[in-house]
Amino acid sequence: MVGSSQQESFARIVADVAAEMLAIRRDQTTIASLFWEVVDYQFGWDLDDPAETQRVSGKKIRPLLMALVAQAISGDYQHVLPAGAALEFLHNFTLIHDDVMDNSVERRHRPAAWTHWGKYQAINVGDGMYALANVAIARLLENATPPRKVALAFRIMSQACLWTAEGQILDMDFETRDRVSPDEYITMITNKSATLIEAAAQIGAVLSTDDDALVERYGRFARYLGIAFQVRDDYLGVWGDEAQTGKSATSDIREKKKSYPVLVGFQRAAGDDLAILQRIYAQDELTDDDIDSVLSILERVDAVAHTDSIAHDYYTGALNELDATGINNSTQDLLRQYAEFLIQRWY
Amino acid sequence: MVGSSQQESFARIVADVAAEMLAIRRDQTTIASLFWEVVDYQFGWDLDDPAETQRVSGKKIRPLLMALVAQAISGDYQHVLPAGAALEFLHNFTLIHDDVMDNSVERRHRPAAWTHWGKYQAINVGDGMYALANVAIARLLENATPPRKVALAFRIMSQACLWTAEGQILDMDFETRDRVSPDEYITMITNKSATLIEAAAQIGAVLSTDDDALVERYGRFARYLGIAFQVRDDYLGVWGDEAQTGKSATSDIREKKKSYPVLVGFQRAAGDDLAILQRIYAQDELTDDDIDSVLSILERVDAVAHTDSIAHDYYTGALNELDATGINNSTQDLLRQYAEFLIQRWY
Repeated sequence: MVGSSQQESFARIVADVAAEMLAIRRDQTTIASLFWEVVDYQFGWDLDDPAETQRVSGKKIRPLLMALVAQAISGDYQHVLPAGAALEFLHNFTLIHDDVMDNSVERRHRPAAWTHWGKYQAINVGDGMYALANVAIARLLENATPPRKVALAFRIMSQACLWTAEGQILDMDFETRDRVSPDEYITMITNKSATLIEAAAQIGAVLSTDDDALVERYGRFARYLGIAFQVRDDYLGVWGDEAQTGKSATSDIREKKKSYPVLVGFQRAAGDDLAILQRIYAQDELTDDDIDSVLSILERVDAVAHTDSIAHDYYTGALNELDATGINNSTQDLLRQYAEFLIQRWY
Repeated sequence: MVGSSQQESFARIVADVAAEMLAIRRDQTTIASLFWEVVDYQFGWDLDDPAETQRVSGKKIRPLLMALVAQAISGDYQHVLPAGAALEFLHNFTLIHDDVMDNSVERRHRPAAWTHWGKYQAINVGDGMYALANVAIARLLENATPPRKVALAFRIMSQACLWTAEGQILDMDFETRDRVSPDEYITMITNKSATLIEAAAQIGAVLSTDDDALVERYGRFARYLGIAFQVRDDYLGVWGDEAQTGKSATSDIREKKKSYPVLVGFQRAAGDDLAILQRIYAQDELTDDDIDSVLSILERVDAVAHTDSIAHDYYTGALNELDATGINNSTQDLLRQYAEFLIQRWY
């Protein structure tokens, strides 16, 4: 469980990251006021009333992990704040583009950016926000970070961005394919979602130690955690408690999302069950009876236990990497608690 | 005039940049084969037959300027090749996204990427290509470039990308506005088009000298050249020689492009002429008579001379900056000849 003192530690980091992001935003020259209008909207910023910022600014998972890794290693996290801000800008660039492509009309309980400014301008703003992320990480040059470390942090981030884009391409490609294996799906979410989380931890580490093995350990911790998080999210999309997750438990099936449990179903079902799955997923829309049929088949092939065990394996793998760092201090404990917090809605 | 020995020098640099780009592409891990399929298509690469590369690979204006600046200062350009490759990837990222938004079906005399793979996957590929540009410039770390210089080059590129995105946002915003002043238009093209050209020259310089003033000089040379190039392109879009430019001279007017000459027309026209312009540009489509009317009005307000003089002023400004570097050698001569080559279709 995460107590109030831990919550306070997390909240302090989130506030520092938000302040860093806002400082970076204020330092930029305005060329297109429309761009900054959308940026301010995305983060809920009112430059005249910074108190408004917190309400819609997101969980900041990546900067939080980065800061905790940095502090566990070096005792401080102030030196990674420009990089933390960079990853949060980067994450929002991917959200803005994804919302356009998924036709998602809501983001953080408000209309998604594209619903106000149109899809093309939202694409442009996303492009600009990626550039802003790069501008942000370059500010490490100004806080006494050795230039080699700045370049390494930038290289890690860029490689992760490339893999994230490839993961997104796989994700859209899978939508058009008849069959996707659970393993292919893990490859996709690893790249689309987990590499940026991995990069966050690696950058936090690389800015705090010269021990490459330690950087890699923290990176794997975060990557496995990211994969576990996504698989568990898929689990909740089928068997979740609606009151807890805030969305209809079966909505992922109704929307024909090829999430992990469904892919396990396709892989393990045989005979009539496979034929039924194929027929149902060839339909444009699913009836309540179809959804019941899918759930029955998933039950027969034991998709619950399989999905749960995959998520649990990655989560355990993440904690093992954390232990293997050999670092023991109160921030390392916080890091473990934050990992638990991210998945506490399940275990 | 550009002679054959100069052409050979330019071709050698272009070939070296193409080879560097291909080497970077070959070194990447394939996550989504679809991504690399589109990348290879964009550059006309056949990995089994590298000779195919040249045919569709573009003029490489930015890497060429970068390499020439580097060689003028330091006598060599091999050390900037990763950055040159980066700017070419970056330029192609902007082309892929722009073609989506402009509904441009052709690029380099072939179908634009989005016509094959759809608009959303083209957006994803563009995002990935921006990441690839960043991965490319990070390779400076591996060719003995001092890390501080790597970080500076990266910072210059990132700032230019942000301004490029803002310029693109202005451009799309102008399409929805009734009035845009010629000055606003210059701000837009400076950011949308000239900043990446400026960044190319600055990076070529910063990787070759510690003299900040020299870096700025070469940057201004390239920026003014970029603006001159764009304004002259607008000139040719209205009064160009169809045989020379390969597109109908009046196509920009038919498409109601708010290019520089037209904005001068709106600014300078009065009374009946202004009313006619406003009426014509409020129409969905323009007749041949409408085009004749616009051309007559542009003639009456002397838009030809005004557009020409603006382009010429920036071009002269560019050459003055080049002279002010105080550098005199055969590569500096080549740089001047390349500037002339870029605009030789006019003066």
